[in-house]
Amino acid sequence: MSDEFTDEEKAGFYRAIYSRRDVRSHFTPEPIKEETLTKILHAAHHAPSVGFSQPWNFILIKDLKTKQKVKESFQKEHERASKLVEDPKRSEYLSLKLEGIMESDVNVCVTYDPTKFGPFIIGTTSIPEAGIYSVCGAIQNLWLAARAENIGLGWVSIVSNDVLKEELELPEHIIPVAYLCLGHVTNFEDKPDLERSGWLPRLELKDVIYFEKWKREEDESWDIIQKMIKTNLK
Amino acid sequence: MSDEFTDEEKAGFYRAIYSRRDVRSHFTPEPIKEETLTKILHAAHHAPSVGFSQPWNFILIKDLKTKQKVKESFQKEHERASKLVEDPKRSEYLSLKLEGIMESDVNVCVTYDPTKFGPFIIGTTSIPEAGIYSVCGAIQNLWLAARAENIGLGWVSIVSNDVLKEELELPEHIIPVAYLCLGHVTNFEDKPDLERSGWLPRLELKDVIYFEKWKREEDESWDIIQKMIKTNLK
Repeated sequence: MSDEFTDEEKAGFYRAIYSRRDVRSHFTPEPIKEETLTKILHAAHHAPSVGFSQPWNFILIKDLKTKQKVKESFQKEHERASKLVEDPKRSEYLSLKLEGIMESDVNVCVTYDPTKFGPFIIGTTSIPEAGIYSVCGAIQNLWLAARAENIGLGWVSIVSNDVLKEELELPEHIIPVAYLCLGHVTNFEDKPDLERSGWLPRLELKDVIYFEKWKREEDESWDIIQKMIKTNLK
Repeated sequence: MSDEFTDEEKAGFYRAIYSRRDVRSHFTPEPIKEETLTKILHAAHHAPSVGFSQPWNFILIKDLKTKQKVKESFQKEHERASKLVEDPKRSEYLSLKLEGIMESDVNVCVTYDPTKFGPFIIGTTSIPEAGIYSVCGAIQNLWLAARAENIGLGWVSIVSNDVLKEELELPEHIIPVAYLCLGHVTNFEDKPDLERSGWLPRLELKDVIYFEKWKREEDESWDIIQKMIKTNLK
């Protein structure tokens, strides 16, 4: 097989990239098939990892008692967060649905183990954070694979890591990185919820690209791409 | 369009997941087309971000002076790292090719700006690290899109962030998250370099999955998936 992707293969890949959403409110009770969940986890495990350390673990959760404890932690943290912002933003914030812990079929806690294959892990000697960055790559693989399998996923980051550590019985050195809610959904929205609701705008591509140095937006050796980026070409 | 992916679309998506590699030694001098690079960056910018904060920036680098400074930083950090490990692992470590800074056409530094759209960013009030995790998701999108476009990518994490900050003129509050090398390649290897060289083995999927609680490897409510995971089904 050639290394090159066909146009059809690219189309499938980009469809996952552009139609993936953070899902909070469209979960249905239909259970995820075991085969589907296995495929999603397999894709996550094939993320890149610094020094090939594969420092991730995935805890699959269905137990309603655990979900309920995490939901209570969300409610507490959410209430606390709402006090950090003034009206009218506060009311707007409180009107947003930000998690689907109880409604989603499966919750997954993704954790980071800095000791795996250690202490000498290639690529972590100058930037130890590279280990946790690898776990985030696995989460992104998982998220995209869920979309390809028509499964919605919502990342709950309004939660106490202490509660997660206690409820999931994590040892002291294990860091919870993400608490994910997965399930079938009625539909995927065209745009992110926070864009649709007008909370924040999507930045244009040109707003996040610099040339050679921080904040340099014009550079003659990058002339052609500068123009292309401005057209927002997909 | 139905939300469901066709088998062909899934195949294209999973091909990117499973054939993506960390490339260090197969770069060719062929320049990346501007259109291709734009597509890759566009995919990166469509990663999920906590509170839709899009806290990433991408600095595109071709300047040989900058590349040279980064390469020197790599050499220094690599030398320092090699002293942390004993022979025979040390010789093995030193024999590995770990970067392609000068040979790759384009280097990209991906940065995190914690102040973007702040100070109140949804989802960062309990876990502020969620911001940097979003940047890692964008990096993984970028990496997969590069593979779909037949472009190799290597992540250099053996480098000093202080050097990156100085060379790229990053303000104090901007955090460099990744230094990436992108370019055309002679070929993509079937397996990761560190697996091929025998540095570390690929873990089996069952080794990274737990059920309901940390370290719980058997659980009757997860009976079917437990069996499936053991087959390593893709």
